[in-house]
Amino acid sequence: MKALEEKILREGTCIGDNILKVDNFLNHQLDVKFMDEMGEELARIFKENNPSKILTVESSGIAIAQSASRALGYIPVVFAKKTAPSTMIEDCYTAEAISFTKGTSSILRVSKNFLSEGDRVLIVDDFLARGEAGLALVSICEQAKAKVVGFSAAIEKKHQGGSAKLREKGIKVQSLAVIDTMHDGKVYFE
Amino acid sequence: MKALEEKILREGTCIGDNILKVDNFLNHQLDVKFMDEMGEELARIFKENNPSKILTVESSGIAIAQSASRALGYIPVVFAKKTAPSTMIEDCYTAEAISFTKGTSSILRVSKNFLSEGDRVLIVDDFLARGEAGLALVSICEQAKAKVVGFSAAIEKKHQGGSAKLREKGIKVQSLAVIDTMHDGKVYFE
Repeated sequence: MKALEEKILREGTCIGDNILKVDNFLNHQLDVKFMDEMGEELARIFKENNPSKILTVESSGIAIAQSASRALGYIPVVFAKKTAPSTMIEDCYTAEAISFTKGTSSILRVSKNFLSEGDRVLIVDDFLARGEAGLALVSICEQAKAKVVGFSAAIEKKHQGGSAKLREKGIKVQSLAVIDTMHDGKVYFE
Repeated sequence: MKALEEKILREGTCIGDNILKVDNFLNHQLDVKFMDEMGEELARIFKENNPSKILTVESSGIAIAQSASRALGYIPVVFAKKTAPSTMIEDCYTAEAISFTKGTSSILRVSKNFLSEGDRVLIVDDFLARGEAGLALVSICEQAKAKVVGFSAAIEKKHQGGSAKLREKGIKVQSLAVIDTMHDGKVYFE
């Protein structure tokens, strides 16, 4: 998505050779009009796969998932939780994920009420780096016997290998902007 | 908002006399079409206050904030963070908030890049109970010298006193559904 690549070049900041900071429109402040444009693009790519539900993970995936839902005719969004609130008393599917940017490990949780056999799941997230969160969400779908019909990150850092791991599982992976490498404070797209 | 009250009665579950679980459409699964209806209602209520920015807190506030932004002509959304990722290296406004449902204390953080004097801020959140998160967000706006032009929660539990504390500060508080009391597993609206 050309507009996203341009926005990353204009508004993003590189921290070292692996971290891209896009707090200006995606991870802290949200450019909602642009989110909706990303949602339209996701619908264009994944409409043919006929998703019935979107799965993401809190927090930064929520905005993209919501825009994609709208563009796909308001299919439900489910966001995996990283902590268990006192209200989460029912059975959950769980999978561990290590955050690359936060350096922390989380147990992702999805209530068994919201994912089941027969669901055709489009997984979306803000970033795809080493694929930790992505693989955890796929594992949760497998536990629920739901079918993963596609995976997209707004920004994929291909050199960190996550997309290759997801494709090995036979999943259609198509991200909106694919970074080939980052070095000397610059981003190079595929 | 009548439709929200009906949805709470239909899909919500009471846990004790103070906790309302609405994971079905707001806190775990998102009914995005309904989010957009809530966003339209927020725009109707707060348009006259001419907000230039929406402030919320991750995670469940994000979806409502995004829908409200769209309905208000795509004004920027900023979500306060509860943890500091490794990318958050700049100066922040901070305030402590204790979560009623999670029983945990968090330091809410907003980068100084995204809130400043001259901003007219509409604060939105999923719940307003004792007002801990709300008052923390107001404090963050005060630190930034930004003006709080309104406050709305999707669901206000009036008996827990948060709305009164915010009104004492001279803030226009208008929530979408106002619960008077909860007892014996039932919700009673104002």
